[in-house]
Amino acid sequence: MMWMFRQKVVKFMPSIQIASRFLHNMKDGQNGRIIWSPPLVSLDHPDIWPSELIPSNPPPNYYYSGEGNAAVIDGKLIAEKIRLGIADEVRRMKDCIKKVPGLAVIMVGDRKDSQTYVRNKIKACEETGIKSVLTELPNGCSEYDVLNALSTFNNDPSIHGILVQLPLPDHVDEERVLNKLNLDKDVDGFHPVNMGDLAMSGREPLFIPCTPKGCIELLIRLGVEIMGKKAVVIGRSNIVGLPTFLLLQRHHATVSVVHAFTKNPEVITRDADIVISAAGVPNLVRGSWLKPGAIVIDVGTFPVEDLESEHGYSLLGDVCYEEAVKVVSAITPVPGGVGPMTIAMLLSNTLDAAKRAYQFT
Amino acid sequence: MMWMFRQKVVKFMPSIQIASRFLHNMKDGQNGRIIWSPPLVSLDHPDIWPSELIPSNPPPNYYYSGEGNAAVIDGKLIAEKIRLGIADEVRRMKDCIKKVPGLAVIMVGDRKDSQTYVRNKIKACEETGIKSVLTELPNGCSEYDVLNALSTFNNDPSIHGILVQLPLPDHVDEERVLNKLNLDKDVDGFHPVNMGDLAMSGREPLFIPCTPKGCIELLIRLGVEIMGKKAVVIGRSNIVGLPTFLLLQRHHATVSVVHAFTKNPEVITRDADIVISAAGVPNLVRGSWLKPGAIVIDVGTFPVEDLESEHGYSLLGDVCYEEAVKVVSAITPVPGGVGPMTIAMLLSNTLDAAKRAYQFT
Repeated sequence: MMWMFRQKVVKFMPSIQIASRFLHNMKDGQNGRIIWSPPLVSLDHPDIWPSELIPSNPPPNYYYSGEGNAAVIDGKLIAEKIRLGIADEVRRMKDCIKKVPGLAVIMVGDRKDSQTYVRNKIKACEETGIKSVLTELPNGCSEYDVLNALSTFNNDPSIHGILVQLPLPDHVDEERVLNKLNLDKDVDGFHPVNMGDLAMSGREPLFIPCTPKGCIELLIRLGVEIMGKKAVVIGRSNIVGLPTFLLLQRHHATVSVVHAFTKNPEVITRDADIVISAAGVPNLVRGSWLKPGAIVIDVGTFPVEDLESEHGYSLLGDVCYEEAVKVVSAITPVPGGVGPMTIAMLLSNTLDAAKRAYQFT
Repeated sequence: MMWMFRQKVVKFMPSIQIASRFLHNMKDGQNGRIIWSPPLVSLDHPDIWPSELIPSNPPPNYYYSGEGNAAVIDGKLIAEKIRLGIADEVRRMKDCIKKVPGLAVIMVGDRKDSQTYVRNKIKACEETGIKSVLTELPNGCSEYDVLNALSTFNNDPSIHGILVQLPLPDHVDEERVLNKLNLDKDVDGFHPVNMGDLAMSGREPLFIPCTPKGCIELLIRLGVEIMGKKAVVIGRSNIVGLPTFLLLQRHHATVSVVHAFTKNPEVITRDADIVISAAGVPNLVRGSWLKPGAIVIDVGTFPVEDLESEHGYSLLGDVCYEEAVKVVSAITPVPGGVGPMTIAMLLSNTLDAAKRAYQFT
């Protein structure tokens, strides 16, 4: 086979300029390297969304003159129904085997958003009869302290789920901590074995990460057919974007992942029947980004100061709600959409873990 | 927040019928189930491509009247250069520490294509000075026999890479076998920990699966800028499609995955700057599926009987080559494109494993 590279070819390549670099590379003997690809372009490349994409405020005029009749997906109500079901199961377990599921939470530092999340999780445990234990460590604690707390819970047979509230402070290595988490208690599903098992055909993870699981649960409860649908996931975090992609593909959607390096993301989202946004950028997704009739799940929870709110801040979603409701057929609000579902899924994973541990069916 | 669901909304949903099912579900109390999503819609759902998509023969007339000037990507030549570099490194290792990398191959049964792949891999080892050991087991062997062979190699310090040639016969559990593979010797990169580490931001796998790594290496040697480009992966196998998606995304492409349940796949592929096809369906990708100027990597190797060929069969790619060359700017041929790169990456992974084992830099 011969290399054929002529000027005529180059003109077909408006955006991918391969000719000159390629020829250069062939000449200089690959600079003595055996493999040219960098080991991996690190995903740590921070996903900073281009500022021109981000409207400073909800825009004053809307592109669509629709009637704003999108169904508002009441995640709070659906999550409540799920929690009631879980409470029933916990009661049945207690009656039958005198045991209840136990969830341990490790929180480091005093981030306000983390505190709210943890408070909500523990409250939800109480309401469903799940035992909860909270270990709070100061921001200045050592990695050893975190690993120590983790080890205690790993070995405690009354604890079936362990949750390390992320993010951890910079001086604590998140990867090392999560690697030490007992796989059978990884109710967050963030261990690489769980993620690998979620990704790979023919395997099943012990736990599915809570937020993605909550998003899919919402879609299924809405009666949305996922198989064969075009779905777009915005954001590619380990916690939401990545497992949401994997899960949607498991359900046989055709999935595209949009991230901060995506050019013209609106062209891709506008083609999607299902949009799940987890960029963490308020109002990133405009009405003009969405296909009429699409289903939108907004995972964004960007905290902004709000002195009128009980805890001093409120949460903003990724989606410009006022525009979106005029275009799509259903959308989750922020707050009250995905958030309560995440907690319900955490309880559900903890219940599953306890059932497995006690072989209770 | 209230549920608002009116007739006006429903008319916006041409393809996603959510109204009636949702309302039904809300009424019947979720049939007593706590979680409605099936644990996972299994990916084992076989990826059978709709027959109307598959042309029985390369079609008689072409859609494009281009001049057929696509660069033919000579994987054989590039792989040879890589193998020469590996041979140099192996020689240097031998000179310095009197050790060479060792690769063990376990092959079960007598599939002709597997035999060819294994033969080629062993030949490549010989040419680069890598020690190779082949264990051939009959089709009727037990899972225990396979695990036994694996265990021997796991414990042999002169073996740095172990390759279990897939597919295994049906009565041998692939998952159980691969789970037992020493992570440090998983040169194929198929262990779920490796896959999880490839998937997750902030982590790096010990090994990147050979075929996807070979595809990326080709793109980089061609001088193709991956970051920000639209890429489509066709197929979602554990071996090629999935890790190719993960790797392209690591390189900051915007990636869509097309599979057998994708509706109008050609609409998605036609938008891509980079198409990597691994469906295993001959001539699935027509010229009309491709964007002018795109780069096409054809991973398909469908064996068809060919009495004139040395081994009694020849390989067909996924891409209708005659059509594609008239549209795209560069394309890999089958054979002679990705195949030799896969082998080169296997050697490269084995060399890396040996270097790690001996702390040789």
